[in-house]
Amino acid sequence: MTARSTLLLAVPVSWAGLWTAPLAEMAPDLNVVVQGRDEYDPKAIDYALGFRPETGLLASLPNLKAVFSLGAGVDGFLVDPNYPKRIPLVRFVDHQLSREMAQYCVMHALIHHRQQRLFDTFQKEKKWRQSVPPRRTDDTRIGVLGIGEIGTIVAKRLRDHDFKMAGWSRTRKQIPGVESFAGHEELQKFLNRSDILICLLPLTADTRHILNAKAFSQLPKDAFVINVARGGHLKEDDLIAAIDSGHLSGATLDVFETEPLPDSSPLWSHHKITVTPHVAAISDPRVMAKNAVDGIARHKVGKPLDNVVDFARGY
Amino acid sequence: MTARSTLLLAVPVSWAGLWTAPLAEMAPDLNVVVQGRDEYDPKAIDYALGFRPETGLLASLPNLKAVFSLGAGVDGFLVDPNYPKRIPLVRFVDHQLSREMAQYCVMHALIHHRQQRLFDTFQKEKKWRQSVPPRRTDDTRIGVLGIGEIGTIVAKRLRDHDFKMAGWSRTRKQIPGVESFAGHEELQKFLNRSDILICLLPLTADTRHILNAKAFSQLPKDAFVINVARGGHLKEDDLIAAIDSGHLSGATLDVFETEPLPDSSPLWSHHKITVTPHVAAISDPRVMAKNAVDGIARHKVGKPLDNVVDFARGY
Repeated sequence: MTARSTLLLAVPVSWAGLWTAPLAEMAPDLNVVVQGRDEYDPKAIDYALGFRPETGLLASLPNLKAVFSLGAGVDGFLVDPNYPKRIPLVRFVDHQLSREMAQYCVMHALIHHRQQRLFDTFQKEKKWRQSVPPRRTDDTRIGVLGIGEIGTIVAKRLRDHDFKMAGWSRTRKQIPGVESFAGHEELQKFLNRSDILICLLPLTADTRHILNAKAFSQLPKDAFVINVARGGHLKEDDLIAAIDSGHLSGATLDVFETEPLPDSSPLWSHHKITVTPHVAAISDPRVMAKNAVDGIARHKVGKPLDNVVDFARGY
Repeated sequence: MTARSTLLLAVPVSWAGLWTAPLAEMAPDLNVVVQGRDEYDPKAIDYALGFRPETGLLASLPNLKAVFSLGAGVDGFLVDPNYPKRIPLVRFVDHQLSREMAQYCVMHALIHHRQQRLFDTFQKEKKWRQSVPPRRTDDTRIGVLGIGEIGTIVAKRLRDHDFKMAGWSRTRKQIPGVESFAGHEELQKFLNRSDILICLLPLTADTRHILNAKAFSQLPKDAFVINVARGGHLKEDDLIAAIDSGHLSGATLDVFETEPLPDSSPLWSHHKITVTPHVAAISDPRVMAKNAVDGIARHKVGKPLDNVVDFARGY
């Protein structure tokens, strides 16, 4: 019989119930303490589950064995300069999350491609005005920045609508119907051929502000940008300038440098930009809890953990 | 060597160039006359190409051999009580048309499912308010009325997003992942399980006003309706009543009883209805011309024509 383990849940206290309830149900033997709500002995913590724990928190736990992320992106952990890199950090990988991301990207790519915003305006003005998409989907090139678990599903669902797909990633990928561009030396060629650019990258030192004035200038005229990764990928001022100059035709943004997006942001009211409040893919707390419970069970019997972050590459 | 044939093009004169140019290029031997613009001897007409020819026109052509429709729907021909039913009428079947219809249906099903209209409102009000879809796609049932060439592709593309798909048609169909309901006796059961109802039916005496108060009452509470077939399928007043009563959650309409939709229509300004001006799938005139040229070539060498309308069933 194994000893009872203790999990530290590092989330805003008011949200803790979203995870404590399924954890209690799935792992009644697991002792769960909530950071900021419960007293605990740092030496007693075996595992941690969270999203953006406060700086130094994880380093203060001498017996920590593994950390589970509540998000697909782990940049919220890596901003902590004291993150104890000897402790494995597990990304949240969930097929449902990928599917929701694919729904969002297909919807917004089609809203752009099929000129739905134009028809929304015509409806407001009671104008019956037919307009044909300037290109067919099989003549429209979409580029996905970041071809991991999520990017692959997004690219496949768009490919099913006959868009000409390409992906850009650190290493070369083999996905039928999706041209692969790899590494920084192929970024410009990838951007040059992307009429719609979708960012799904992990946020690392390498990818911060990758969506900047230079990148936009390398996209074809009238290209459209969709960012569903992290606000830190995008230089928001550069995007607005590239749209206002007439080079880019618009953008759909789900993530922002500052969230919630401040009232004062010009993004809210830009008529060529769609803003959604970080809802492209919302993880199900039950699935997150199960992910951690399964990982803990594997770890306790000495099995290797899946989806462990490589600290050298940053995701 | 075969004799030179004459094709009567029955379209609005100002649009005729869309077809005369590709016809001249693809079939330089074909003599093309435009109804309402060119003088012609009715006895000289071998073939006709059009969309909604005036009543009695086709019956006045004694040597007519085949008629080609410019649309997937042929109701514009069958409203003519004098249509000469001994003459084969060829539907326009085009893979590109089906794909465009699938793009439109996937986009509008996702706009509804992912609450994009709500986020549009939040953006206008600069409100950062997260909201999760009330159901997952694999718990959301879509029903496609009309599972022919187009309906099959629409159902498959929606199935790829894990929606629970069903189709309703005259005869039973076998499409993996799409439950088949057949005939009038299974219509109610089909409607009872459709959270999103998409109409892609041909317009016939049987299907006119099939989207009426009774059908809406058989849909689940908060169901959503998408009509991309013909305005004649829908009782517009019944739809508005079913939405305003709170039973249906809204609709997206691309086709209307009267087109262009009159300024006075309450559909234009209903906040739960999206109106687009018959643009879900717009046929490419070159492909239409090629379809007729290929059919004429087959007919002249005695081969059977494809996609000939069955006048008994009406499509």
